[in-house]
Amino acid sequence: MRPISTIAFLLALTCGLLIAPLAQALDVPVKRWKFGNGLTLVVIPDRRAPVVTHMVWYRVGAADEPAGKTGLAHYLEHLMFKGTKRIAPGEFSKIVKRYGGNDNAFTSRDYTAYFQRIAKDKLAMVMEMEADRMQNLRLSEKDVKTELEVIKEERRQRTENDPRTLFGERLQAALYVAHPYRRPVVGWMADVERLSLADVMAFYRRFYTPANAIVVVAGDVEPEEVRKLAEKHYGRLKNTGVIGPRWRTPEPPPLAARRVVMKSPRVRQPVFQRLWVAPSYRTARDGMAHALDVFADALGGGATSLLYRRLVVEEKVAAWAGAYYAGDDRDYGTFGVFATPAPGVTPQKLEARIDAVLKEVLEKGIDAKRLERSRKSMVASAIYALDSQFALARIFGEALATETGMDSVLQWDERIERVTAEDALKAGRAVLKGANSVTGWLLPAQRERKAAANVSPADKRELVQ
Amino acid sequence: MRPISTIAFLLALTCGLLIAPLAQALDVPVKRWKFGNGLTLVVIPDRRAPVVTHMVWYRVGAADEPAGKTGLAHYLEHLMFKGTKRIAPGEFSKIVKRYGGNDNAFTSRDYTAYFQRIAKDKLAMVMEMEADRMQNLRLSEKDVKTELEVIKEERRQRTENDPRTLFGERLQAALYVAHPYRRPVVGWMADVERLSLADVMAFYRRFYTPANAIVVVAGDVEPEEVRKLAEKHYGRLKNTGVIGPRWRTPEPPPLAARRVVMKSPRVRQPVFQRLWVAPSYRTARDGMAHALDVFADALGGGATSLLYRRLVVEEKVAAWAGAYYAGDDRDYGTFGVFATPAPGVTPQKLEARIDAVLKEVLEKGIDAKRLERSRKSMVASAIYALDSQFALARIFGEALATETGMDSVLQWDERIERVTAEDALKAGRAVLKGANSVTGWLLPAQRERKAAANVSPADKRELVQ
Repeated sequence: MRPISTIAFLLALTCGLLIAPLAQALDVPVKRWKFGNGLTLVVIPDRRAPVVTHMVWYRVGAADEPAGKTGLAHYLEHLMFKGTKRIAPGEFSKIVKRYGGNDNAFTSRDYTAYFQRIAKDKLAMVMEMEADRMQNLRLSEKDVKTELEVIKEERRQRTENDPRTLFGERLQAALYVAHPYRRPVVGWMADVERLSLADVMAFYRRFYTPANAIVVVAGDVEPEEVRKLAEKHYGRLKNTGVIGPRWRTPEPPPLAARRVVMKSPRVRQPVFQRLWVAPSYRTARDGMAHALDVFADALGGGATSLLYRRLVVEEKVAAWAGAYYAGDDRDYGTFGVFATPAPGVTPQKLEARIDAVLKEVLEKGIDAKRLERSRKSMVASAIYALDSQFALARIFGEALATETGMDSVLQWDERIERVTAEDALKAGRAVLKGANSVTGWLLPAQRERKAAANVSPADKRELVQ
Repeated sequence: MRPISTIAFLLALTCGLLIAPLAQALDVPVKRWKFGNGLTLVVIPDRRAPVVTHMVWYRVGAADEPAGKTGLAHYLEHLMFKGTKRIAPGEFSKIVKRYGGNDNAFTSRDYTAYFQRIAKDKLAMVMEMEADRMQNLRLSEKDVKTELEVIKEERRQRTENDPRTLFGERLQAALYVAHPYRRPVVGWMADVERLSLADVMAFYRRFYTPANAIVVVAGDVEPEEVRKLAEKHYGRLKNTGVIGPRWRTPEPPPLAARRVVMKSPRVRQPVFQRLWVAPSYRTARDGMAHALDVFADALGGGATSLLYRRLVVEEKVAAWAGAYYAGDDRDYGTFGVFATPAPGVTPQKLEARIDAVLKEVLEKGIDAKRLERSRKSMVASAIYALDSQFALARIFGEALATETGMDSVLQWDERIERVTAEDALKAGRAVLKGANSVTGWLLPAQRERKAAANVSPADKRELVQ
């Protein structure tokens, strides 16, 4: 809802930084229950401080929105901070803050989640408040109108004003031929402008229902006590919507490579991005997601990676180059390669060199030592990333909200350790095919810059901000 | 429903052959009424033979389908030929045939239409039958299952088996960033496979309702008598759905040129296509649709056009080249340029020459004499095309179903006559911009063909069929 949520989401989306980590190495005894109404409870003891992280995840995100109503899941996320019968509009976060806590929410393609971090003796209170707004949301025409201006401004500020984000949006729209991951989570502005109270309430009643919710509690708690508390606050709720299997149009067979070229006067450096539709951790078979993760890290994860060394250090055609695999979405993962040409190098020249390096890598594979290094550093990074109660709660909530399952988290490190050079190469060859891909160039708009030569220096600054 | 419908539609869609014609020149006194339940009646006297064409148009097409249910409008079109309380399954067309008539149906992005051509004394009968199936459709699980196999086979035969149709589908998907015109009318196979009786009935009840229907009767009839007949059969029907304004996500601002490259072992000649999103006749301001129509004809309408003369006759880089404007859809029109390289000419070379000719045309405009010739031949073609009762009924039905309006038809010739060289150039410049466009190449898959060198001649033939 507030800035951090969407920024974190966008980072995860565009940089592929969602790290699937491991609880096993941290030796955390995760507990899980399912109540009679279908609500799932997950408890993760973490006794380092007398605080808890309480999250409610709904298995509904932007990819579940009806036709012509993009942005609806995110809009509802904002509106959940209005009132209920018992909580006055805007009071929810103030109450949490009054007790020394903080709260926020985030929306992705697959889920919408709400959380509070607060002293452990306030867990019952935040549960009561979350259970209340799961069923008793009260919205006035004025609330929805005011908040609509907020989300429109959010889109203007973060998307319309940022050529890189706009470019990312158009790349996603071209990467997916049919699947709704092609639509931006914040929605297309023209749809957003028309979202109504009736749209929001229909979506809320259908999807914000116990059978579609996952409650995650991490912190200094006794699992059995949390279960009793959750049973009391969530277990008695009745379902308001019928939750069937999720259906999103899948991608048709990959047949045609796409390309997107965007020019902007507000860009100084050309940016290259190539994305491939890949399996996700949930849909991959035979460890392919793990193999893609290792392959991506060795290919382009940082300054010791193959792409960086070849293109930036040795050939000096790129100022920056890398690769990543993002596999945590429900239906598809993304494999990405990105680069910026070194000064004086044309986009054509850089792209030809990227093509050549990729071709070579897909013929010969990646050196076993480099892969070993990737496996080690990935597992270490994951452990480091999970040294936060929030990250711990989030990784399990996400695994369940995307229907990937907790085993995927718990077994991640072991399976990463087992990825061989052959696995990595096989996965790379399976995914890095032209017909799976979109190639994008974000280029400085030279004509507009020339045209701007006649305007005053102040205007010019504005133009290339 | 039967082959002609979809073929005609695809032709119209891919070749832009929907010609907006003129009733005025034919001196036809078109009459129009609106009944209390919202149903619109249009009568077009045409006394050349004692027959009538009776059509029912529903303002609902593929672009109105819910998310994840592509193909639903077309599926319902097929199922409308099953039974009602009074007509046994499959009997509808047999009854029409028994009285010497014929019938069929077609689905587009914007509408679904049903028609019968029959002796004029059978008009009351077909009206009764159409009014009956507007409200009393009866479908069994068996009906929908059987018909699902039919439409799946239709997609396999006409789309999956035809690289040009597949290529066209991917081009549309890349041309539109957000608007549902990007989805194929026949639907994505994975969606089609899951369409259910419940989906069909919900769609039918919502959209097949008098307020959403237009009845068009052309033929040897007295308008006032037809009105009485229609009042009797259609006027008394109650609405089953609430018809609000149609909302389809519009295109976001054009920012990035797209490109689609598809390779197929079943293609022998490279095919170039560039499409631009343009205004439609309904959305265009200040005669821009008319200007685009004239511009397209002069640029690429046949062997005397500028593109053909330059690329095929003079430079000999193309075996075939042309351009068109298709402006009859509701929300957007399409401007298209297509070409095939001459033997020995690379796709790159041909595209560079096309770019050069387009650049020149958009700088200098098109010769006034050539434009005059286009205006004359377009008006003549339209008159010729309307020398058919079916075409006459269709053009008015379509104009109303797309909310373009009958005036657009009635004034078309006059407004075409008024298009100046300046209008044409201005329209061309406004539309033919990179960020509005997708450029597509359908190429022979050379590798697969080489790989096929070892297979038997019979297999090879199959491979390049």
